Amino acid sequence: MTPPNSQDCPFEKRFPSQLVRDDTFFMSLAYNQAIDAWRQDEVPIGCVIEHGGEVIAFSHNTVESSQDPTAHAEMLAITQAATKLGNWRLENCTLYVTKEPCPMCSGATLMSRLKRVCYAVPDPKMGCLGGATDLNALPRVNHTLDLTAGGVLEDECRTLIQAFFKLKRAVDKDGTLPPTDA
Amino acid sequence: MTPPNSQDCPFEKRFPSQLVRDDTFFMSLAYNQAIDAWRQDEVPIGCVIEHGGEVIAFSHNTVESSQDPTAHAEMLAITQAATKLGNWRLENCTLYVTKEPCPMCSGATLMSRLKRVCYAVPDPKMGCLGGATDLNALPRVNHTLDLTAGGVLEDECRTLIQAFFKLKRAVDKDGTLPPTDA
Repeated sequence: MTPPNSQDCPFEKRFPSQLVRDDTFFMSLAYNQAIDAWRQDEVPIGCVIEHGGEVIAFSHNTVESSQDPTAHAEMLAITQAATKLGNWRLENCTLYVTKEPCPMCSGATLMSRLKRVCYAVPDPKMGCLGGATDLNALPRVNHTLDLTAGGVLEDECRTLIQAFFKLKRAVDKDGTLPPTDA
Repeated sequence: MTPPNSQDCPFEKRFPSQLVRDDTFFMSLAYNQAIDAWRQDEVPIGCVIEHGGEVIAFSHNTVESSQDPTAHAEMLAITQAATKLGNWRLENCTLYVTKEPCPMCSGATLMSRLKRVCYAVPDPKMGCLGGATDLNALPRVNHTLDLTAGGVLEDECRTLIQAFFKLKRAVDKDGTLPPTDA
Protein backbone atom coordinates (compact mmCIF):
# COMPACT_ATOMS: atom_id res chain seq x y z
CA MET A 1 0.00 0.00 0.00
CA THR A 2 1.20 3.52 -0.75
CA PRO A 3 2.02 5.35 2.47
CA PRO A 4 0.52 8.86 2.78
CA ASN A 5 2.54 11.63 1.12
CA SER A 6 5.44 9.33 0.38
CA GLN A 7 5.73 11.15 -2.95
CA ASP A 8 6.82 14.32 -1.11
CA CYS A 9 10.47 14.14 -2.02
CA PRO A 10 12.48 16.61 0.05
CA PHE A 11 15.22 16.87 -2.57
CA GLU A 12 15.34 19.19 -5.59
CA LYS A 13 16.31 18.42 -9.16
CA ARG A 14 19.66 19.60 -10.53
CA PHE A 15 19.99 22.03 -13.43
CA PRO A 16 23.43 21.51 -14.95
CA SER A 17 24.66 23.67 -17.86
CA GLN A 18 23.95 22.09 -21.24
CA LEU A 19 27.35 23.39 -22.40
CA VAL A 20 29.50 21.11 -20.27
CA ARG A 21 28.62 17.52 -21.19
CA ASP A 22 30.83 15.71 -18.74
CA ASP A 23 30.08 12.78 -16.42
CA THR A 24 28.59 15.12 -13.81
CA PHE A 25 26.20 16.53 -16.41
CA PHE A 26 24.86 13.11 -17.41
CA MET A 27 24.77 11.82 -13.83
CA SER A 28 22.78 14.91 -12.86
CA LEU A 29 20.14 13.89 -15.39
CA ALA A 30 20.15 10.36 -13.96
CA TYR A 31 19.76 11.92 -10.50
CA ASN A 32 16.73 13.87 -11.75
CA GLN A 33 15.21 10.59 -12.92
CA ALA A 34 15.73 9.24 -9.41
CA ILE A 35 13.84 12.24 -8.02
CA ASP A 36 10.97 11.46 -10.42
CA ALA A 37 11.00 7.88 -9.14
CA TRP A 38 10.62 9.06 -5.53
CA ARG A 39 7.74 11.34 -6.53
CA GLN A 40 6.01 8.20 -7.86
CA ASP A 41 6.83 6.26 -4.70
CA GLU A 42 9.41 4.09 -6.50
CA VAL A 43 12.92 3.31 -5.29
CA PRO A 44 14.88 6.45 -6.31
CA ILE A 45 17.33 5.06 -8.83
CA GLY A 46 17.70 6.84 -12.16
CA CYS A 47 19.52 6.16 -15.39
CA VAL A 48 20.37 7.87 -18.68
CA ILE A 49 22.21 6.58 -21.74
CA GLU A 50 24.48 8.88 -23.75
CA HIS A 51 25.41 8.51 -27.42
CA GLY A 52 27.37 11.12 -29.36
CA GLY A 53 26.99 13.65 -26.57
CA GLU A 54 23.19 13.35 -26.51
CA VAL A 55 20.84 11.55 -24.12
CA ILE A 56 19.10 8.82 -26.11
CA ALA A 57 17.32 7.13 -23.18
CA PHE A 58 16.30 7.98 -19.63
CA SER A 59 14.35 6.06 -17.07
CA HIS A 60 13.84 5.20 -13.45
CA ASN A 61 12.75 2.20 -11.45
CA THR A 62 9.03 1.38 -11.94
CA VAL A 63 8.88 -2.06 -10.27
CA GLU A 64 6.06 -1.12 -7.88
CA SER A 65 3.76 0.67 -10.31
CA SER A 66 4.20 -1.93 -13.07
CA GLN A 67 4.60 -4.92 -10.71
CA ASP A 68 7.32 -6.06 -13.11
CA PRO A 69 10.54 -7.27 -11.44
CA THR A 70 12.50 -6.49 -14.63
CA ALA A 71 11.45 -2.81 -14.62
CA HIS A 72 14.67 -1.43 -13.19
CA ALA A 73 15.93 1.93 -14.47
CA GLU A 74 18.79 0.38 -16.48
CA MET A 75 16.64 -2.28 -18.18
CA LEU A 76 14.07 0.26 -19.35
CA ALA A 77 16.76 2.67 -20.56
CA ILE A 78 18.59 -0.11 -22.45
CA THR A 79 15.41 -1.11 -24.30
CA GLN A 80 14.72 2.56 -25.05
CA ALA A 81 18.23 3.14 -26.40
CA ALA A 82 18.09 0.05 -28.63
CA THR A 83 14.75 1.21 -30.01
CA LYS A 84 16.19 4.66 -30.70
CA LEU A 85 19.27 3.29 -32.47
CA GLY A 86 17.39 0.47 -34.22
CA ASN A 87 20.10 -1.89 -33.04
CA TRP A 88 20.39 -4.10 -29.98
CA ARG A 89 24.13 -3.52 -29.81
CA LEU A 90 24.66 -0.29 -27.84
CA GLU A 91 28.19 0.25 -29.08
CA ASN A 92 29.63 3.70 -28.36
CA CYS A 93 27.00 4.30 -25.68
CA THR A 94 27.60 5.16 -22.02
CA LEU A 95 25.08 4.26 -19.33
CA TYR A 96 24.90 6.50 -16.26
CA VAL A 97 23.10 5.16 -13.21
CA THR A 98 22.82 6.50 -9.66
CA LYS A 99 23.60 3.14 -7.97
CA GLU A 100 25.76 0.18 -8.94
CA PRO A 101 23.63 -2.16 -11.06
CA CYS A 102 22.04 -5.26 -9.47
CA PRO A 103 22.81 -8.79 -10.77
CA MET A 104 20.21 -8.50 -13.56
CA CYS A 105 21.14 -5.01 -14.71
CA SER A 106 24.88 -5.66 -14.50
CA GLY A 107 24.32 -8.59 -16.83
CA ALA A 108 22.20 -6.45 -19.14
CA THR A 109 24.95 -3.84 -19.51
CA LEU A 110 27.21 -6.62 -20.82
CA MET A 111 24.62 -8.33 -23.03
CA SER A 112 23.75 -5.00 -24.67
CA ARG A 113 27.44 -4.38 -25.53
CA LEU A 114 27.55 -0.96 -23.90
CA LYS A 115 30.88 0.79 -24.32
CA ARG A 116 30.93 2.19 -20.82
CA VAL A 117 29.07 2.21 -17.52
CA CYS A 118 29.41 4.99 -14.94
CA TYR A 119 27.67 4.48 -11.60
CA ALA A 120 27.48 6.86 -8.65
CA VAL A 121 27.09 4.71 -5.52
CA PRO A 122 28.90 1.36 -5.12
CA ASP A 123 26.76 -1.46 -3.68
CA PRO A 124 28.83 -4.14 -1.94
CA LYS A 125 25.67 -6.16 -1.17
CA MET A 126 23.90 -6.46 -4.53
CA GLY A 127 26.13 -4.71 -7.08
CA CYS A 128 27.66 -6.95 -9.74
CA LEU A 129 30.08 -4.56 -11.40
CA GLY A 130 32.68 -4.61 -8.64
CA GLY A 131 30.57 -4.70 -5.46
CA ALA A 132 29.32 -8.19 -4.53
CA THR A 133 31.08 -9.57 -7.61
CA ASP A 134 32.29 -8.29 -11.00
CA LEU A 135 30.55 -9.82 -14.02
CA ASN A 136 32.72 -7.57 -16.20
CA ALA A 137 35.72 -9.66 -15.11
CA LEU A 138 34.37 -13.06 -16.19
CA PRO A 139 37.06 -14.37 -18.54
CA ARG A 140 34.86 -15.93 -21.23
CA VAL A 141 31.96 -13.47 -21.49
CA ASN A 142 32.14 -12.02 -24.99
CA HIS A 143 32.21 -8.34 -24.02
CA THR A 144 33.91 -6.09 -21.50
CA LEU A 145 32.95 -2.56 -20.47
CA ASP A 146 34.88 0.53 -19.55
CA LEU A 147 33.82 1.21 -16.00
CA THR A 148 33.68 4.25 -13.71
CA ALA A 149 32.78 2.82 -10.35
CA GLY A 150 31.70 5.58 -7.96
CA GLY A 151 32.90 9.14 -7.50
CA VAL A 152 30.45 11.01 -9.77
CA LEU A 153 27.73 12.65 -7.63
CA GLU A 154 28.23 9.73 -5.29
CA ASP A 155 27.32 11.59 -2.07
CA GLU A 156 24.20 13.17 -3.58
CA CYS A 157 22.90 9.88 -4.99
CA ARG A 158 23.64 7.99 -1.77
CA THR A 159 21.90 10.61 0.38
CA LEU A 160 18.80 10.36 -1.83
CA ILE A 161 18.56 6.57 -1.64
CA GLN A 162 19.30 6.40 2.10
CA ALA A 163 16.72 9.10 2.88
CA PHE A 164 14.06 7.21 0.90
CA PHE A 165 14.63 3.95 2.75
CA LYS A 166 14.83 5.71 6.12
CA LEU A 167 11.41 7.23 5.38
CA LYS A 168 10.03 3.87 4.23
CA ARG A 169 11.22 2.08 7.33
CA ALA A 170 9.72 4.74 9.58
CA VAL A 171 6.36 4.56 7.75
CA ASP A 172 6.35 0.78 7.83
CA LYS A 173 7.02 0.81 11.55
CA ASP A 174 4.16 2.88 12.93
CA GLY A 175 2.06 3.74 9.90
CA THR A 176 2.70 7.47 10.21
CA LEU A 177 4.99 9.69 8.22
CA PRO A 178 8.16 11.03 9.84
CA PRO A 179 9.28 14.65 9.28
CA THR A 180 10.18 15.18 5.62
CA ASP A 181 13.70 16.22 6.58
CA ALA A 182 14.34 12.52 7.23
CA MET B 1 20.22 -10.13 -42.93
CA THR B 2 18.07 -13.25 -42.70
CA PRO B 3 19.73 -16.15 -44.50
CA PRO B 4 17.50 -18.06 -46.95
CA ASN B 5 15.33 -20.76 -45.41
CA SER B 6 16.95 -20.39 -42.02
CA GLN B 7 13.46 -20.83 -40.58
CA ASP B 8 13.41 -24.44 -41.81
CA CYS B 9 14.00 -26.08 -38.46
CA PRO B 10 14.81 -29.78 -38.92
CA PHE B 11 13.57 -30.66 -35.44
CA GLU B 12 10.02 -31.50 -34.39
CA LYS B 13 8.08 -30.32 -31.37
CA ARG B 14 7.45 -32.67 -28.46
CA PHE B 15 3.99 -33.75 -27.33
CA PRO B 16 4.23 -34.84 -23.69
CA SER B 17 1.24 -36.21 -21.82
CA GLN B 18 -0.65 -33.52 -19.91
CA LEU B 19 -1.17 -36.05 -17.12
CA VAL B 20 2.44 -36.25 -15.95
CA ARG B 21 3.50 -32.75 -14.91
CA ASP B 22 7.09 -33.44 -14.06
CA ASP B 23 10.26 -31.55 -14.99
CA THR B 24 10.43 -33.31 -18.37
CA PHE B 25 6.88 -32.16 -19.15
CA PHE B 26 7.62 -28.51 -18.49
CA MET B 27 11.04 -28.63 -20.16
CA SER B 28 9.36 -30.15 -23.24
CA LEU B 29 7.18 -27.06 -23.46
CA ALA B 30 10.27 -24.85 -23.12
CA TYR B 31 11.88 -26.94 -25.89
CA ASN B 32 8.85 -26.28 -28.10
CA GLN B 33 9.32 -22.57 -27.52
CA ALA B 34 12.92 -22.97 -28.69
CA ILE B 35 11.65 -24.63 -31.89
CA ASP B 36 9.34 -21.64 -32.43
CA ALA B 37 12.36 -19.35 -31.97
CA TRP B 38 14.31 -21.17 -34.69
CA ARG B 39 11.32 -20.95 -37.04
CA GLN B 40 11.54 -17.16 -36.58
CA ASP B 41 15.30 -17.18 -37.12
CA GLU B 42 15.99 -16.43 -33.47
CA VAL B 43 18.49 -18.22 -31.22
CA PRO B 44 16.56 -21.38 -30.18
CA ILE B 45 16.24 -20.90 -26.45
CA GLY B 46 12.83 -21.35 -24.85
CA CYS B 47 11.37 -20.84 -21.41
CA VAL B 48 8.19 -21.55 -19.45
CA ILE B 49 7.21 -20.63 -15.91
CA GLU B 50 5.13 -23.02 -13.81
CA HIS B 51 2.87 -22.09 -10.89
CA GLY B 52 0.56 -24.54 -9.14
CA GLY B 53 1.10 -27.15 -11.84
CA GLU B 54 0.07 -24.78 -14.65
CA VAL B 55 2.13 -22.86 -17.20
CA ILE B 56 1.62 -19.16 -16.50
CA ALA B 57 4.21 -17.81 -18.95
CA PHE B 58 6.09 -19.03 -22.02
CA SER B 59 8.49 -17.28 -24.33
CA HIS B 60 11.54 -17.54 -26.52
CA ASN B 61 14.40 -15.29 -27.51
CA THR B 62 13.29 -12.37 -29.75
CA VAL B 63 16.45 -10.24 -29.71
CA GLU B 64 16.82 -10.12 -33.49
CA SER B 65 13.21 -9.38 -34.45
CA SER B 66 12.75 -6.79 -31.70
CA GLN B 67 16.36 -5.52 -31.76
CA ASP B 68 16.08 -5.42 -27.99
CA PRO B 69 19.07 -6.87 -26.10
CA THR B 70 16.87 -7.53 -23.06
CA ALA B 71 14.43 -9.73 -25.05
CA HIS B 72 15.78 -13.07 -23.86
CA ALA B 73 13.31 -15.91 -23.27
CA GLU B 74 13.61 -15.71 -19.49
CA MET B 75 13.11 -11.93 -19.27
CA LEU B 76 9.95 -12.01 -21.37
CA ALA B 77 8.55 -14.96 -19.42
CA ILE B 78 9.28 -13.30 -16.07
CA THR B 79 7.43 -10.13 -17.10
CA GLN B 80 4.54 -12.27 -18.38
CA ALA B 81 4.34 -14.27 -15.16
CA ALA B 82 4.38 -11.13 -12.99
CA THR B 83 1.58 -9.66 -15.11
CA LYS B 84 -0.43 -12.86 -14.76
CA LEU B 85 0.02 -13.01 -10.97
CA GLY B 86 -0.32 -9.24 -10.47
CA ASN B 87 2.79 -9.37 -8.33
CA TRP B 88 6.47 -8.86 -9.14
CA ARG B 89 7.47 -11.49 -6.60
CA LEU B 90 7.29 -14.86 -8.36
CA GLU B 91 7.20 -16.89 -5.15
CA ASN B 92 6.24 -20.54 -5.61
CA CYS B 93 7.08 -20.36 -9.33
CA THR B 94 9.56 -22.55 -11.21
CA LEU B 95 11.27 -21.30 -14.36
CA TYR B 96 12.27 -23.90 -16.96
CA VAL B 97 14.75 -22.84 -19.64
CA THR B 98 16.58 -24.84 -22.28
CA LYS B 99 20.02 -23.30 -21.57
CA GLU B 100 21.67 -21.98 -18.42
CA PRO B 101 20.70 -18.31 -18.08
CA CYS B 102 23.15 -15.57 -19.18
CA PRO B 103 24.42 -12.93 -16.71
CA MET B 104 21.30 -10.76 -17.18
CA CYS B 105 18.75 -13.56 -16.96
CA SER B 106 20.50 -15.25 -14.04
CA GLY B 107 20.23 -11.96 -12.19
CA ALA B 108 16.58 -11.62 -13.17
CA THR B 109 15.71 -15.04 -11.73
CA LEU B 110 17.03 -13.79 -8.38
CA MET B 111 15.49 -10.32 -8.53
CA SER B 112 12.07 -11.81 -9.33
CA ARG B 113 12.27 -14.09 -6.26
CA LEU B 114 11.59 -17.29 -8.21
CA LYS B 115 11.35 -20.35 -6.00
CA ARG B 116 13.24 -22.58 -8.40
CA VAL B 117 15.11 -22.62 -11.71
CA CYS B 118 15.58 -25.74 -13.82
CA TYR B 119 17.84 -25.44 -16.87
CA ALA B 120 18.66 -28.10 -19.44
CA VAL B 121 22.12 -27.26 -20.83
CA PRO B 122 24.91 -25.89 -18.62
CA ASP B 123 26.90 -23.00 -20.13
CA PRO B 124 30.42 -22.73 -18.70
CA LYS B 125 31.13 -19.65 -20.85
CA MET B 126 28.19 -17.32 -20.18
CA GLY B 127 25.99 -19.08 -17.62
CA CYS B 128 25.73 -17.39 -14.23
CA LEU B 129 23.91 -20.05 -12.22
CA GLY B 130 26.88 -22.38 -11.80
CA GLY B 131 28.66 -22.14 -15.18
CA ALA B 132 30.93 -19.11 -15.52
CA THR B 133 29.94 -18.06 -12.00
CA ASP B 134 27.05 -18.61 -9.57
CA LEU B 135 25.06 -15.49 -8.68
CA ASN B 136 22.85 -17.71 -6.51
CA ALA B 137 25.84 -18.20 -4.20
CA LEU B 138 26.51 -14.50 -3.52
CA PRO B 139 26.35 -14.29 0.28
CA ARG B 140 24.49 -10.97 0.64
CA VAL B 141 21.95 -11.11 -2.19
CA ASN B 142 18.54 -11.17 -0.54
CA HIS B 143 17.21 -14.30 -2.24
CA THR B 144 18.37 -17.80 -3.12
CA LEU B 145 16.84 -20.25 -5.56
CA ASP B 146 16.42 -23.98 -5.61
CA LEU B 147 18.37 -25.06 -8.66
CA THR B 148 18.32 -28.02 -11.04
CA ALA B 149 21.39 -27.52 -13.18
CA GLY B 150 21.28 -29.76 -16.26
CA GLY B 151 20.00 -33.27 -16.77
CA VAL B 152 16.42 -32.57 -17.92
CA LEU B 153 16.21 -32.96 -21.74
CA GLU B 154 19.82 -31.81 -21.73
CA ASP B 155 20.89 -33.73 -24.85
CA GLU B 156 17.85 -32.67 -26.86
CA CYS B 157 18.21 -28.98 -25.98
CA ARG B 158 21.97 -29.01 -26.64
CA THR B 159 21.54 -30.70 -30.02
CA LEU B 160 19.01 -28.04 -31.04
CA ILE B 161 21.23 -25.09 -30.10
CA GLN B 162 24.37 -26.60 -31.60
CA ALA B 163 22.61 -27.41 -34.90
CA PHE B 164 21.33 -23.84 -35.15
CA PHE B 165 24.77 -22.30 -34.71
CA LYS B 166 26.37 -24.82 -37.04
CA LEU B 167 23.86 -23.77 -39.69
CA LYS B 168 24.46 -20.08 -38.98
CA ARG B 169 28.22 -20.41 -39.26
CA ALA B 170 27.91 -22.30 -42.55
CA VAL B 171 25.58 -19.64 -43.99
CA ASP B 172 27.79 -16.82 -42.76
CA LYS B 173 30.83 -18.45 -44.35
CA ASP B 174 29.80 -18.82 -47.98
CA GLY B 175 26.35 -17.25 -48.18
CA THR B 176 24.65 -20.56 -49.08
CA LEU B 177 22.62 -22.88 -46.94
CA PRO B 178 24.06 -26.23 -45.89
CA PRO B 179 21.90 -29.40 -45.96
CA THR B 180 19.10 -29.12 -43.42
CA ASP B 181 20.30 -32.25 -41.61
CA ALA B 182 23.16 -30.05 -40.31
